[in-house]
Amino acid sequence: MGTLPKNIEQAIEEFGKLPGVGQKTAERLTFYLLSKKEEDVERFGETIRMLKKGIRYCERCQNFSTETICSICSNLERDPSVICIVEDPLDLIALEKANTYKGLYHVLHGVISPVEGIGPDDLKIAELITRVKEGKVKEIILALNPSLEGEATSAYILRYIRPPQAGPDLKITRIARGIPMGGDLNYADAQTLKKAFEGRNDY
Amino acid sequence: MGTLPKNIEQAIEEFGKLPGVGQKTAERLTFYLLSKKEEDVERFGETIRMLKKGIRYCERCQNFSTETICSICSNLERDPSVICIVEDPLDLIALEKANTYKGLYHVLHGVISPVEGIGPDDLKIAELITRVKEGKVKEIILALNPSLEGEATSAYILRYIRPPQAGPDLKITRIARGIPMGGDLNYADAQTLKKAFEGRNDY
Repeated sequence: MGTLPKNIEQAIEEFGKLPGVGQKTAERLTFYLLSKKEEDVERFGETIRMLKKGIRYCERCQNFSTETICSICSNLERDPSVICIVEDPLDLIALEKANTYKGLYHVLHGVISPVEGIGPDDLKIAELITRVKEGKVKEIILALNPSLEGEATSAYILRYIRPPQAGPDLKITRIARGIPMGGDLNYADAQTLKKAFEGRNDY
Repeated sequence: MGTLPKNIEQAIEEFGKLPGVGQKTAERLTFYLLSKKEEDVERFGETIRMLKKGIRYCERCQNFSTETICSICSNLERDPSVICIVEDPLDLIALEKANTYKGLYHVLHGVISPVEGIGPDDLKIAELITRVKEGKVKEIILALNPSLEGEATSAYILRYIRPPQAGPDLKITRIARGIPMGGDLNYADAQTLKKAFEGRNDY
């Protein structure tokens, strides 16, 4: 429009490229920053600018890391015989926050999605198969999201890691589907209810 | 959590400080950037870092500007005898986009809000009164938002700029309230309907 200094227009444009951020939100975020102290805005900018510096994938689990091997994979207190497969680092974080799992992970960085043009080769599946073939893994936990793509990806992976290719003793499990804690049967969808019944436990 | 490189945790923390951005959204935005090219992420960061550099308030209208006098105030094709008072620069942008107003602006940078501890002295009201006292203004258009705070601020300003303090010929108007274009009477609130009737025009 030319009614705003170039700095401001550029910031609005950059914010607008973020997912879920439209023109109005981009304007609101930019003017929020303009109302803040210059040093705070500079620190925010510098943090973003440095975000990807020195970040690589862990050679073992493929999670983001600053080291060749990440802090989880190199943690001797964790059980290296169990690998939990997740779609992306955010799922890993969610599981870590739950503080319940003490094995290692494998981050696929996506799921197979023909619609979005994402095939098995775009994911970290080859790296997973290599890890499994090393023969030290006793259990693999599939923790992909219960979506069509998640199911398809799980099925694809299963084809490659199921015994005997992987060794006769490899146990393969997947996390339970069911009613979430605090959830209401009344609001649960039919598929979830079906899975909850199929997966029922002794009381 | 220690499960993520410090760069990433810091970016999540900084995003989380933005208004309307919770922990989950901050994580999502950060990992979105991690999936982008390093040069794009750096440019975004650099843009934010430079956002406030050289930005000041226009000495006349108080809008953000890189010059002492902003591009609108120094535009000779605009009518300097009309001043439209708005709450913040975003409202000014919205009006400019509508491409209907060709006078000047005055940006208050907020509204009087006792709840949030914002009084008249926190706004650019003194600067407005100075402009009006110069005696070159023929019309003042109040374009504050139709909220309680907007009404209170309009009322406060009126006390200071109403003739004779401001000169006997100063016309003071405010933008019309009514049914928005494309709106539906059925969904309009009672106050809006009331204003729409009060402000009815000859057909």
